[in-house]
Amino acid sequence: MDNRPIGVFDSGLGGLTAVQKLMEELPDEDIIYLGDTGRVPYGGRSKETIIKYARQDIAFLKSFDIKAMVIACGTVSTTALGEIKDDYNLPIIGVVGPAVKKAVEVTRNKKIGLIGTVASINSRAYDRLILEKMPEAEIFSAACPLLVPLVENGRINRGDIMIETAVREYLEPIKAQGVDTLILGCTHYPLIGEVISDYMGEGVTLISPGAETASYVAKLLGERGLSAESGHNNKYRFFVTDSVDEFSKAASLFLKKNVQGEVNKADLSIY
Amino acid sequence: MDNRPIGVFDSGLGGLTAVQKLMEELPDEDIIYLGDTGRVPYGGRSKETIIKYARQDIAFLKSFDIKAMVIACGTVSTTALGEIKDDYNLPIIGVVGPAVKKAVEVTRNKKIGLIGTVASINSRAYDRLILEKMPEAEIFSAACPLLVPLVENGRINRGDIMIETAVREYLEPIKAQGVDTLILGCTHYPLIGEVISDYMGEGVTLISPGAETASYVAKLLGERGLSAESGHNNKYRFFVTDSVDEFSKAASLFLKKNVQGEVNKADLSIY
Repeated sequence: MDNRPIGVFDSGLGGLTAVQKLMEELPDEDIIYLGDTGRVPYGGRSKETIIKYARQDIAFLKSFDIKAMVIACGTVSTTALGEIKDDYNLPIIGVVGPAVKKAVEVTRNKKIGLIGTVASINSRAYDRLILEKMPEAEIFSAACPLLVPLVENGRINRGDIMIETAVREYLEPIKAQGVDTLILGCTHYPLIGEVISDYMGEGVTLISPGAETASYVAKLLGERGLSAESGHNNKYRFFVTDSVDEFSKAASLFLKKNVQGEVNKADLSIY
Repeated sequence: MDNRPIGVFDSGLGGLTAVQKLMEELPDEDIIYLGDTGRVPYGGRSKETIIKYARQDIAFLKSFDIKAMVIACGTVSTTALGEIKDDYNLPIIGVVGPAVKKAVEVTRNKKIGLIGTVASINSRAYDRLILEKMPEAEIFSAACPLLVPLVENGRINRGDIMIETAVREYLEPIKAQGVDTLILGCTHYPLIGEVISDYMGEGVTLISPGAETASYVAKLLGERGLSAESGHNNKYRFFVTDSVDEFSKAASLFLKKNVQGEVNKADLSIY
């Protein structure tokens, strides 16, 4: 038993979709969430800048006595994690591994689609891990830079011409290849799961890395004896780097429920 | 005569649209440009964060021996300039004043439209200055958070359903009020001037704050005897806070010509 908190971070508040799944899978855990809202989005930035920001995010969360760290950010998981994970004496879990595990389990025709930010796609992190686990897989990927701003502006519903146009344009070449599995490689994308699913059709399984990662973390903590005590009076703390005022609006979009927890401002410039 | 450089900054590279106008108006001037590409965009961030970032941008440019500073960023000009401009012993020119001067000159029916980022619109900086100069003016404004990402993704052409949908949705209520003048309160918007003009119709004059500011700076330097010598061997220097690799692509979008100049990386964390 270990009642120390789990640290979770994302470039912004999209990572709360993963936190929601963690709360469902692990209702007894303390969670400390950091959203770098003062510098969001990371997805179009260079690798060197993403690594620098990720190290500051990790240093901030390490300043609490956390037992594990979840990188609930597709961009950091794909672009920075490989380079930095061995520098910390702590289990650091990104979203790539759990998502790939699921994708190779569910694909039947071994044709896997992948969408993400520019940085995520350029990193080829998903490609490398898929091919390691399934060398005969074919991977078809697309960077989708407009999906994050569209989701953040609430353009998430069926019938919205802007989100439907963007989804169709980005996914057309992937659909044309006949994939039966599509990895939604950014925490914002599950919010447009319906629009994506409508376009891709029923035969295509959508993989949500945040949800897969939550299940993976639950399993990992159990195996290592790191789970919190059942019934332990756990709490949630949220940190942002821009003003805390915007948090509740975003939380209702990404967390989909009212969560009791402190919201505070973090200063990363000292790390 | 004063051959010292003019400093110009923007949250990202959109401010290069104003630099282009400065180069046309003032072909003999040295220009040092800073684009905070590691933290762009500013337009959705809180006032306190925008002020903090603006102070760092200014401190960086002040470290060169500049004779004047141009804030080629609608968001900083509207949100931070009023609060910080008296803290520096230097002419600091934002885009609001020159744009408002032009708007009240050209409007005939005294109905003025305004579009900008969320922070710009919420600041009400344009509204205050318009009403100071023309108390009987009616102002109709809209925050347009999707226009910057659409422009940055090259969705700028007539016939593009995404940019046309966004422009129509944002501008519909402004057009319905019968404005005859529309201020394009963000450096990215002149790039979709045609799409906006098509929708608003021929009777509406579009005001581009970057262009008005360039004319204003030319006049100010002349009046104060601060202009560079004619034929002086001037140069351009560009700084970004993310990788320099992306600069040329963006420069070709916003600057619309090949410019010879050094491109270097700036570290703002020391300010």
